[in-house]
Amino acid sequence: MKHIPGGVCAAQGFTANGVLCGIKPGRTTPDLALIMSETPANAAAVYTQNLVQGAPITVTKQHLCNNKAQAVIVNSGNANTCNADGIDIANAMCNLVETHVKIPAEDVIVASTGVIGQPLPIAPIQNGMAALTAGLSRENNGAAAQAIMTTDTFPKECAVEFELGGKTCRLGGMAKGSGMIHINMATMLAFITTDVAIAPDIVEEILKECSEATLNMVSVDGDTSTNDMCCILANGMAGNTEITAPGKDLSTFCAALTQVLTETAKMLARDGEGATKLLECHVTGAKSTQDARLAAKSVISSNLVKAAMFGADANWGREMCALGYSGASIDITQVSVKFSSAAGEITVCETGAGLPFCEDLAAKVLGEDEIVIEIGLCDGNASATAWGCDLTYDYVKINGDYRT
Amino acid sequence: MKHIPGGVCAAQGFTANGVLCGIKPGRTTPDLALIMSETPANAAAVYTQNLVQGAPITVTKQHLCNNKAQAVIVNSGNANTCNADGIDIANAMCNLVETHVKIPAEDVIVASTGVIGQPLPIAPIQNGMAALTAGLSRENNGAAAQAIMTTDTFPKECAVEFELGGKTCRLGGMAKGSGMIHINMATMLAFITTDVAIAPDIVEEILKECSEATLNMVSVDGDTSTNDMCCILANGMAGNTEITAPGKDLSTFCAALTQVLTETAKMLARDGEGATKLLECHVTGAKSTQDARLAAKSVISSNLVKAAMFGADANWGREMCALGYSGASIDITQVSVKFSSAAGEITVCETGAGLPFCEDLAAKVLGEDEIVIEIGLCDGNASATAWGCDLTYDYVKINGDYRT
Repeated sequence: MKHIPGGVCAAQGFTANGVLCGIKPGRTTPDLALIMSETPANAAAVYTQNLVQGAPITVTKQHLCNNKAQAVIVNSGNANTCNADGIDIANAMCNLVETHVKIPAEDVIVASTGVIGQPLPIAPIQNGMAALTAGLSRENNGAAAQAIMTTDTFPKECAVEFELGGKTCRLGGMAKGSGMIHINMATMLAFITTDVAIAPDIVEEILKECSEATLNMVSVDGDTSTNDMCCILANGMAGNTEITAPGKDLSTFCAALTQVLTETAKMLARDGEGATKLLECHVTGAKSTQDARLAAKSVISSNLVKAAMFGADANWGREMCALGYSGASIDITQVSVKFSSAAGEITVCETGAGLPFCEDLAAKVLGEDEIVIEIGLCDGNASATAWGCDLTYDYVKINGDYRT
Repeated sequence: MKHIPGGVCAAQGFTANGVLCGIKPGRTTPDLALIMSETPANAAAVYTQNLVQGAPITVTKQHLCNNKAQAVIVNSGNANTCNADGIDIANAMCNLVETHVKIPAEDVIVASTGVIGQPLPIAPIQNGMAALTAGLSRENNGAAAQAIMTTDTFPKECAVEFELGGKTCRLGGMAKGSGMIHINMATMLAFITTDVAIAPDIVEEILKECSEATLNMVSVDGDTSTNDMCCILANGMAGNTEITAPGKDLSTFCAALTQVLTETAKMLARDGEGATKLLECHVTGAKSTQDARLAAKSVISSNLVKAAMFGADANWGREMCALGYSGASIDITQVSVKFSSAAGEITVCETGAGLPFCEDLAAKVLGEDEIVIEIGLCDGNASATAWGCDLTYDYVKINGDYRT
């Protein structure tokens, strides 16, 4: 598994672009993105579990009924959610793709991200389509990744190369997400492309499975967005024998997808709104994977844990507290808590009770910008990892006045 | 129902006191409180649902097995939780009460609040007992209310007077809570005293019922504490005919308890760590009370809603988003959202879609320090109210370095 550049254009047959069409006044970076596959691709997606779902989610679900897609259009600056004309606008975006690149609108995945409840004007998108499609190339993955950013501070791209039956295969992606991120199926926008030949039912299943342990283990602020989606397009251009069942090839593919989604998850957590630190909570010794995941998610989601990490305060009672209300089956008298980072590690709790520890070392360990919180449950063999970030003044600042 | 002063000493036969015994270095206000009833009282409590429970919770549960109590001892500055000797220390506190006021240790309710995982020294408490008991009086309710504060910025007391069968009755209480407050049975420390004669099984049932709609509808930060408890002592000294079954007297008692707990809930929310605003979310038109409560709690708990309220930003999509993941049965296409305050009211969403509204008026309405978020579900007749506060820079500041 080799890291390569190229993001959503790393795999054969994919091009992309991003342009500034002016959806939200004052924006100076691209706000409209298109990803194209040379040939129709097998496709699947996982979606937000929020009852309030953006109009693009509804339209994309319809279009993916047959597990086929050839293009993805995404705008930032407006979520096209809770608008009376939302479905019409989302369909109009797909129709514009049909008109400009001559593929059926039904083969287009559409996504929007930004403020909820303000009508999304179609005119800027219409006006931007010519430049958007004219600039489609293998080199413009960066512009596309930029165009889907909202409060993100950096574009999020990742790609890997691997072999299946002697054929070189690639899988890459881009994502956005910084706030309104919580655990509940996909928790952000993520677009994955690959040239691997893989049957549509298998790709759907494997996307669900791999996102459970990666994208669904990220929390920034406990709010599950209305527009979240992670989709994958697999166009088969690598020429490998199509994956149609479990086996060595599927395992390799799964490893590649997990790697890209894990790195994406970490990028999303690191770029959480206002965040200064990436937090990783690693739970071991759980009775079941579900218990391990519940425990890890609960710790990483606790405002009090997050604020303590911002302040580099080894107040481990907050981890205990979060474990206690996580819903996981836990024998509290067996729990251990350890903090680690590039500066060292420090165990602060064992068998459910505090240990004396050096406050200076603790402050040093927690002073780093990547902190691992290791929770030992000593009650089984299952484990899980969740990612999050600290809670800072800037989170409040960013969200105190997001619309203006 | 008349408001009266006196807090936990408002009811006949109750005295209280608070002294500074020095549990946490540097504190200059009382940190040890005692409430006494002249006669043994029927008593009950509701407790945190966190799996991690402070040692005082365990001891109090044992002591309330027989639904009798005569005193309450509480310290702040240390939660006596996750300590190897926690149970011994909690028992020692009850034994100290036995020694000093000559009642059985089994009739003592014990509570602790403060940092988790640091041993609670018994010596300061031992040394403080003489002054604590010597100062017991009907006038020292204020000192007791002060002694249970942690990051609270003001003491929380409330009492009412009412009649049962021609007898004057009183019910009052004190509470503490500012952070680590979330919905899950009792969510703070609250101590209620009354001179009403009421059977022990009835008082237990009614405390559960009344706290569900009041204390359990408050969220400050989504973290359910390890030490939460709300207890009630009913000593019967008002001389009313003992309440042993539903009827007019029980209804009146329930109204009094609900009023005191509601006002307590609002004080807790208003004093949420770093809060500048009291938020009230009122949900109407729900299919069931459970749906109404889920919806109201979800809105009031959303970090994004809370941050928007801090910024006086009418970003109502965040309310919609929180309703969508609340778990309540909601027809999103029927939802309305209205903000109101002393400065007026403004409807921003109807039948699930945004309405054009005046931003200046919205900013005025949300600029007040008490905001009501009214959610209409148009899907039934049930309603519920939840209370919370805004999320501010100061919440982060307070919690970034709580221990020092």
